[in-house]
Amino acid sequence: MAKVKKAPRPKAQTPKGFRDYFGHEVRERTEMLSKIAGVYHRYGFEALESSAVETVEALGKFLPDVDRPNEGVFAWQDEDDNWMALRYDLTAPLARVYAEHRNDLPLPYRRFAMGPVWRNEKPGPGRYRQFYQCDADTVGAASVAADAEICAMLADCLEELGIPRGDYLIRVNNRKVLNGVLQAMGVADEEQAAAVLRTIDKFDKVGESGVRELLGKGRLDASGAYIDGVGLAPEQAEPVLAFLTARQSVRSTYVANLSEAALQGNFDMFGRFESVVRAMLSQETGGNEAEFVPANIANIATLMLLEQIVGHSEVGKEGVQELDEIVALLMAQGYGPDRIVIDPSVVRGLGYYTGPVFEAELTFKIPDEKGRKRQFGSVAGGGRYDDLVKRFTGQVVPATGVSIGVDRLLAALREKGRVGGSETGPVVVTVMDRDRMADYQAMVAELRQAGIRAEVYLGNPKNFGNQLKYADKRHSPVAVIEGGDEKARGVVQIKDLILGAKIAENASLEEWKERPSQYEVARGDLVAKVREILEGQA
Amino acid sequence: MAKVKKAPRPKAQTPKGFRDYFGHEVRERTEMLSKIAGVYHRYGFEALESSAVETVEALGKFLPDVDRPNEGVFAWQDEDDNWMALRYDLTAPLARVYAEHRNDLPLPYRRFAMGPVWRNEKPGPGRYRQFYQCDADTVGAASVAADAEICAMLADCLEELGIPRGDYLIRVNNRKVLNGVLQAMGVADEEQAAAVLRTIDKFDKVGESGVRELLGKGRLDASGAYIDGVGLAPEQAEPVLAFLTARQSVRSTYVANLSEAALQGNFDMFGRFESVVRAMLSQETGGNEAEFVPANIANIATLMLLEQIVGHSEVGKEGVQELDEIVALLMAQGYGPDRIVIDPSVVRGLGYYTGPVFEAELTFKIPDEKGRKRQFGSVAGGGRYDDLVKRFTGQVVPATGVSIGVDRLLAALREKGRVGGSETGPVVVTVMDRDRMADYQAMVAELRQAGIRAEVYLGNPKNFGNQLKYADKRHSPVAVIEGGDEKARGVVQIKDLILGAKIAENASLEEWKERPSQYEVARGDLVAKVREILEGQA
Repeated sequence: MAKVKKAPRPKAQTPKGFRDYFGHEVRERTEMLSKIAGVYHRYGFEALESSAVETVEALGKFLPDVDRPNEGVFAWQDEDDNWMALRYDLTAPLARVYAEHRNDLPLPYRRFAMGPVWRNEKPGPGRYRQFYQCDADTVGAASVAADAEICAMLADCLEELGIPRGDYLIRVNNRKVLNGVLQAMGVADEEQAAAVLRTIDKFDKVGESGVRELLGKGRLDASGAYIDGVGLAPEQAEPVLAFLTARQSVRSTYVANLSEAALQGNFDMFGRFESVVRAMLSQETGGNEAEFVPANIANIATLMLLEQIVGHSEVGKEGVQELDEIVALLMAQGYGPDRIVIDPSVVRGLGYYTGPVFEAELTFKIPDEKGRKRQFGSVAGGGRYDDLVKRFTGQVVPATGVSIGVDRLLAALREKGRVGGSETGPVVVTVMDRDRMADYQAMVAELRQAGIRAEVYLGNPKNFGNQLKYADKRHSPVAVIEGGDEKARGVVQIKDLILGAKIAENASLEEWKERPSQYEVARGDLVAKVREILEGQA
Repeated sequence: MAKVKKAPRPKAQTPKGFRDYFGHEVRERTEMLSKIAGVYHRYGFEALESSAVETVEALGKFLPDVDRPNEGVFAWQDEDDNWMALRYDLTAPLARVYAEHRNDLPLPYRRFAMGPVWRNEKPGPGRYRQFYQCDADTVGAASVAADAEICAMLADCLEELGIPRGDYLIRVNNRKVLNGVLQAMGVADEEQAAAVLRTIDKFDKVGESGVRELLGKGRLDASGAYIDGVGLAPEQAEPVLAFLTARQSVRSTYVANLSEAALQGNFDMFGRFESVVRAMLSQETGGNEAEFVPANIANIATLMLLEQIVGHSEVGKEGVQELDEIVALLMAQGYGPDRIVIDPSVVRGLGYYTGPVFEAELTFKIPDEKGRKRQFGSVAGGGRYDDLVKRFTGQVVPATGVSIGVDRLLAALREKGRVGGSETGPVVVTVMDRDRMADYQAMVAELRQAGIRAEVYLGNPKNFGNQLKYADKRHSPVAVIEGGDEKARGVVQIKDLILGAKIAENASLEEWKERPSQYEVARGDLVAKVREILEGQA
């Protein structure tokens, strides 16, 4: 046997781009996942936990003639020299699972999945190589009812997590409408079309004038660099701009005009939307016109504008028609444009989605790393992708789904103070007499049996100060003390550490000495007194 | 750009040794983990979720001069040629986390972790390369109170999962006692000592006579192969056999004698255990001797025998002393030998544990793959390992912990019928009229708002039989039907599918025709009627 050199001490650190999650971080995520799972389940979705490891062949996206296919993924060869990799999302595994088990699965197959995914990408601040996704997808349903259902479910999820209506918005678009607009513009070249889509995706950042410049000759960006434009003529770019501003225009004047018309009973101008608008009016107002909310006509107005913009493009008209259906289905369930809005600027993943696309954004502002108040932006997104299973079976299987960025959403809710906040640790029973450990253990056993989180100090008990420091580090609400004297008298000392900390901050020496945050009770009253203090703190 | 060859269709399958988990499998595991986490939390343990990927250097166990260190783990090189690997357990990452964050963590640090681990080992029936572990460890506590606490917590976990007292047993031993026995035998050679420990580990399988043969010249195993023995002289092997049978001997006569003595007030024979036994007697009987349970003296009896067997070995005496403390601490919290028993045959992981070791076994029998009733055996185990953090920091940090084999435990509870059973799917609203999808969506929205799991059939609605087959595959309890006729009359048809299935199995044609499992109710009574049926099924 070769002699093994003594290894130097290993470095105690995670690999680059990975991190650990502690205590409340884990608990908060678990709670969030559990709430989302509850909503998914209520909608009839079934849990799926696929293996974290897939064959590179099944994951796809990789070129067969590249030796080491770990661009973007973590990959290695197994004992038979086959490449395996960690999943980079939860959708590629779903396609594999569906193709593998399709004879046993119901059709349509609604499934949800939650768990970590891994990306072999350059890490950065807040960008890790392992993060959670939380997906729901419907495989095998061609109807846009499946897309509408997912939008409604996404809204329910966000509200279940404590995000009130008005603090989020689900924006819906349709890739077919985008394609229709490109057709209407006469953009046939694939590369140019992709460039236009990328420009549309920048609308939120650079605004109308920025998009106008980028579709034309180009523009100077904030850093002073010149960004080349797509090179369209101004009249060619016009449909895109009309398209992008459809939502805004609507909000300013068009909605007002349409609302006015609807209230005056002038339904002619709604064309084929007439019945929907009539239904909406009667549903909302119950006959009382004063109840009518003009904003609720916004989605109809957007659709009417989009219809004009896509003109004679067949795919464009089909796309608008699908959005009509989605809006009608959502309205029938009570999801109006205060929650789900048609928004033409939503693009999402080029060359992946084939129909409706959607994105959930938080509309409230929170400070960024430089303290500037910013809109937090997208926390979930998805859409229809009809070609994913085809890779395996040759058959086109329609599918649509959504992915919630759990870590991002948690970060937003933490910033907003909706998650976390003050953390409470366990009751700590201190050790005054090392030989009476059994007594202290009996105390925590009693507390636990009463459902109270409790622990005995298990470090070296010699220095009592260390025990109180430990309780402090544990965010303990209460410390229990039983020295030899207390034992002899059949009592225990119970310290209210929360109140104690408050007094320590503000109290005079006299107040401090009175120690009103410490109580002596009979040993038999331990559980009752601790519970009383905890209830007072809550 | 190189031209890319068209790839053949990928195979839709998991890599060898991996599998997917569906629906109730995922839910049952999530529920189990959540219950265990609740107990761990109540004991003051904090959640930790470390990254799934570690540097090979931090994981340890690997030789620095091996090119490809993936023996037993899945490993690959990152962009800087450093080796990374998937964690193979949750303890090695804990050591790294503790060493990395020790200045911020409380001392002692109680933490729990749950999640998948990966092993690059030959897969087999029921042996997968990815499986769940669920660990709790205390780092930085040298006192055996930490070990005792973990044993109590393990018992609480099993009971929280619905395993009643009597259906499980936590067996506790101490590596120091084993070492003491080896010393008493005069086995100094390390390899021979390891061989003896391996033989002890086989006690459950081969029994007393088998161990006697294996410690001596060897034996013929069941397949007819001759297994070489350790080569000890019979008198040298005697202490091991006495040691191994300590628990059994105790159970037969020793316990009876000791109980008799205790009840007659003859405490002399308990030696230094006198006070413990007195306390036990008064605690248990409350003065009423008829209440005394002789089995409860079993742990004391085992300890007294072990003390005789280790003789003058210092380490052996220390080990027995530690077990004394554990028994006393557990008794003070009410954990007697009906739950936690001192058992000298527990060995566990050679060269890893340094003090107390423990193992939880299920004592009920369930049929194995050949239908033979077998004891299910170990579902959790752990012990004290004091050297793990030293690799990183040079300092010895005492630690003890337990790992629950979640997947194994789930399998046992499923076999026993304590988990799973009949599964209920969502209420399915069928689609009779494709154009009225909005009506059907409104129905499921109402049902969900009432907390009832519900979905609309989203496949092709043309063939109604397919919709009912789908509901069957989904284990739906109820189907809702609203055709044009029902719509016009303002009613819906509600089918009790559970009752329907029962009737279909047993009913005569007349009974079947009466269709007592289908109800027509006003559309407005949909939710109320569905709830009534679901409550009747529960």
